Amino acid sequence: MSSTKDIDNLIEMMAKLPGLGPRSARRAVLHLIRKRGLLLTPLADVMQTVAATARECLNCGNVGTSDICDLCDSEKRANGQLCVVEDVADLWAMERSNVFKGRYHVLGGTLSALDSIGPNELRIPKLIDRITTEGITEVILALNATIDGQTTAHYIADNLAGVTVTSLAQGVPIGGELDYLDDGTISAALTARKSL
Amino acid sequence: MSSTKDIDNLIEMMAKLPGLGPRSARRAVLHLIRKRGLLLTPLADVMQTVAATARECLNCGNVGTSDICDLCDSEKRANGQLCVVEDVADLWAMERSNVFKGRYHVLGGTLSALDSIGPNELRIPKLIDRITTEGITEVILALNATIDGQTTAHYIADNLAGVTVTSLAQGVPIGGELDYLDDGTISAALTARKSL
Repeated sequence: MSSTKDIDNLIEMMAKLPGLGPRSARRAVLHLIRKRGLLLTPLADVMQTVAATARECLNCGNVGTSDICDLCDSEKRANGQLCVVEDVADLWAMERSNVFKGRYHVLGGTLSALDSIGPNELRIPKLIDRITTEGITEVILALNATIDGQTTAHYIADNLAGVTVTSLAQGVPIGGELDYLDDGTISAALTARKSL
Repeated sequence: MSSTKDIDNLIEMMAKLPGLGPRSARRAVLHLIRKRGLLLTPLADVMQTVAATARECLNCGNVGTSDICDLCDSEKRANGQLCVVEDVADLWAMERSNVFKGRYHVLGGTLSALDSIGPNELRIPKLIDRITTEGITEVILALNATIDGQTTAHYIADNLAGVTVTSLAQGVPIGGELDYLDDGTISAALTARKSL
């Protein structure tokens, strides 16, 4: 390679990011170098700040810059509803939809016998704690509709007592065309049909 | 958004990179935060170094960390051949193929009447300079096979005197299937057919 060591290094590290490979990393790095004043320096600064301050919320597992995240800190959010998600990305997706007004609990994965991930690896004890300490009345399971996700949902539902447990509805997505949907979704949507 | 300002900021800046959108930027940032010790801190450090040291070679336009890049600095490369490319990415692509042993000249774009990019915007005067100062005997035009690239190639060929000007061969790419090739490529390959 013709570029010098630091640049090669930067390309190699960028290529490790999910969604980027060697070719797109090279493109991104060239773009960054061309706009080093406007983009590379500020990006490096923000990365340094985030590296120094980012941490997991001790309560819910969300990513933020303080020990207790904004969501857990906000009194407005204490409406008795707790939404359980697998991952911080799922929490962010829920927040973008802007419908849910309660608090979250990030499991950090799903139960998996193969990977020997049990309830204690998953922040499930903390979830059971929070039910009582935060006076939760409804737990909404927003886990992915995969086998692991649903196994985890069943396990959690079986282990929570004295609280309503609900889960996201399954059915035809908005804008979905029946012809392109899998059989499982169609059968779930038919079973859960609503009268208009 | 639930994440705090710096994290949002980082996501926004990452989303501006070519090849990344908002969704992949969020994924990349979450990945970086999870591995902040292993990935985010070193990446921020390398970015800072590159931002401070990266510059264009004053001679050829390649990107490096000194005023004259390694390729222009190396005496081994002074074999009288000069390969003209549009862009640093093209130079890197040529170097990866590991066949060309001469020096490069990066134009920094192509002539374009629409965008009012003339020869002076393109490091073409510098190219004409280098022919004499570096004792170049052959100029190899490795410009993209687009209309703008070919226009630029013709302009350069017309303006260089006393030096052999060649260009990359056009034809069927290695591993290419005729059925998937465009008419232009097939007709170029047929015109330039070789006897075996």
